[in-house]
Amino acid sequence: MSDFNERFSQYAAEFEAVLESFCSKLDCRPQILADSMKYSLTAGGKRVRPVMMYAAGGLLSVPREELDNFALATELIHTYSLIHDDLPEMDNDDFRRGKPSNHVVFGAGNAVLAGDALLTTACSMLVRECYKGAAQISAAEFLLDCAGIYGMIGGQSADLLHENDPTCDEKTLGFIYLNKTAKMLTAPLVIPSVLAGGKYYSELKLFGENIGALFQLTDDILDFKGDFSELGKSTGKDEREGKCTAVALFGADGAELRADMLGDKCLKILEGIEGDVSFFKELVMRVRTRRA
Amino acid sequence: MSDFNERFSQYAAEFEAVLESFCSKLDCRPQILADSMKYSLTAGGKRVRPVMMYAAGGLLSVPREELDNFALATELIHTYSLIHDDLPEMDNDDFRRGKPSNHVVFGAGNAVLAGDALLTTACSMLVRECYKGAAQISAAEFLLDCAGIYGMIGGQSADLLHENDPTCDEKTLGFIYLNKTAKMLTAPLVIPSVLAGGKYYSELKLFGENIGALFQLTDDILDFKGDFSELGKSTGKDEREGKCTAVALFGADGAELRADMLGDKCLKILEGIEGDVSFFKELVMRVRTRRA
Repeated sequence: MSDFNERFSQYAAEFEAVLESFCSKLDCRPQILADSMKYSLTAGGKRVRPVMMYAAGGLLSVPREELDNFALATELIHTYSLIHDDLPEMDNDDFRRGKPSNHVVFGAGNAVLAGDALLTTACSMLVRECYKGAAQISAAEFLLDCAGIYGMIGGQSADLLHENDPTCDEKTLGFIYLNKTAKMLTAPLVIPSVLAGGKYYSELKLFGENIGALFQLTDDILDFKGDFSELGKSTGKDEREGKCTAVALFGADGAELRADMLGDKCLKILEGIEGDVSFFKELVMRVRTRRA
Repeated sequence: MSDFNERFSQYAAEFEAVLESFCSKLDCRPQILADSMKYSLTAGGKRVRPVMMYAAGGLLSVPREELDNFALATELIHTYSLIHDDLPEMDNDDFRRGKPSNHVVFGAGNAVLAGDALLTTACSMLVRECYKGAAQISAAEFLLDCAGIYGMIGGQSADLLHENDPTCDEKTLGFIYLNKTAKMLTAPLVIPSVLAGGKYYSELKLFGENIGALFQLTDDILDFKGDFSELGKSTGKDEREGKCTAVALFGADGAELRADMLGDKCLKILEGIEGDVSFFKELVMRVRTRRA
């Protein structure tokens, strides 16, 4: 347990240094553009994706410096998606990680641009990685596929479409979980695999998809029963907005049961991987029982 | 003159075929995501950027098939920027090219996602080009720099910032023109140069920056004096919204004079390029005297 906390903190701290270096070099004009990008990048994210990437890199012996820009690009893409998702016309959330959302601080116009800026900067970073070789190109391609229309954006679109949709069923919910959330949690595991020549590619991809779905499932449970002070964002929104969630479809108990089953599935997948997967095992437990 | 029209139509038609093929393969879920992307992609754009890229490719003898994906990525990025720019919190325009804006048809949430989707898809396309070699990577890098925080997004941010700013001066205006508009008109000329080993790189870059500024300058003039039926979008908005434009700074006559001078500069730059630049010469005249 404490070993997990130490390793998580260590990975997160290493990523913070990479991010800090990136932010310190961000000197674009006008100032409000750089400020709005940095605001959301440094607004207390848990750095789950970079941590997962570093942990997978450790498992597969990928040198850290080969991962840094991919970790950064992943976090930039994740952050842009939160900024756009919080916009009034999207999920309409004025709080994120206990702080005012980007659009509350900088206005909706600047928030749209801050999101566009983070995404474009991530893509520039990925293209520059491509000079290093075909493995990097494949890794960049995988990440953008996870972030794009056959991944995260498809999931967000479906999420929006099925608000207040009484016909929303388990199949649709599975599509939303996989695409909106799980794919961007799969990329951090698959990228090190691609850079390591495809080692444990299928296992890590499957694990990512399942722990990603578990992440969204527990998110929905927390939205239902969590409280603002622990979560740092509004709760009870899913129900008010008629979102298609596991809680809406199966009730709170049904959602909890499904989370248990998904957790078991994650652990089962890890059995197929040789080497020290204790960090990922513990991660499954933490995601399953998280309160924030 | 008629030779210009023929060549423009020919290039545009060739690009339409490329775009049509792209659209026909776009089968992402949910349907509204694909529909909203296609709506703006096929809503009557003039295809200025692809046409310029094909014309520059012709000048430098770059095979057409090497340009198609770059032309497509450029048009996708341009289209995403229009969708986000038209949003209520940005430029707030309900019409684009004579048709209702994306957010009017699909709602603001879907419009945000359609823009994100076009940008991410363009980036995926660019990364896949990178397998072909270092020249393609450089070309992709150049395009994303033009589209990013040191290019278009920086210009849009400055444009937003200086609304109703009485201190906006010629230097700021130059920054907005160069970044908001000119850089994305420079990329179509520089990309063929990069693919041709850097031939006429400086000349084409400089020409792009200047014809791009001329494009924005005439856009501002048209916003001031044009009419909706010819333009297909609202007019008089710049003044109502206190935009920093050449008309606001120098008056209508001063803006016209500057447009003449910029046009002359463009023609002067073309003198430094050997080969048939007649298409670009005529393009300068058309941009200078355009009514839509």
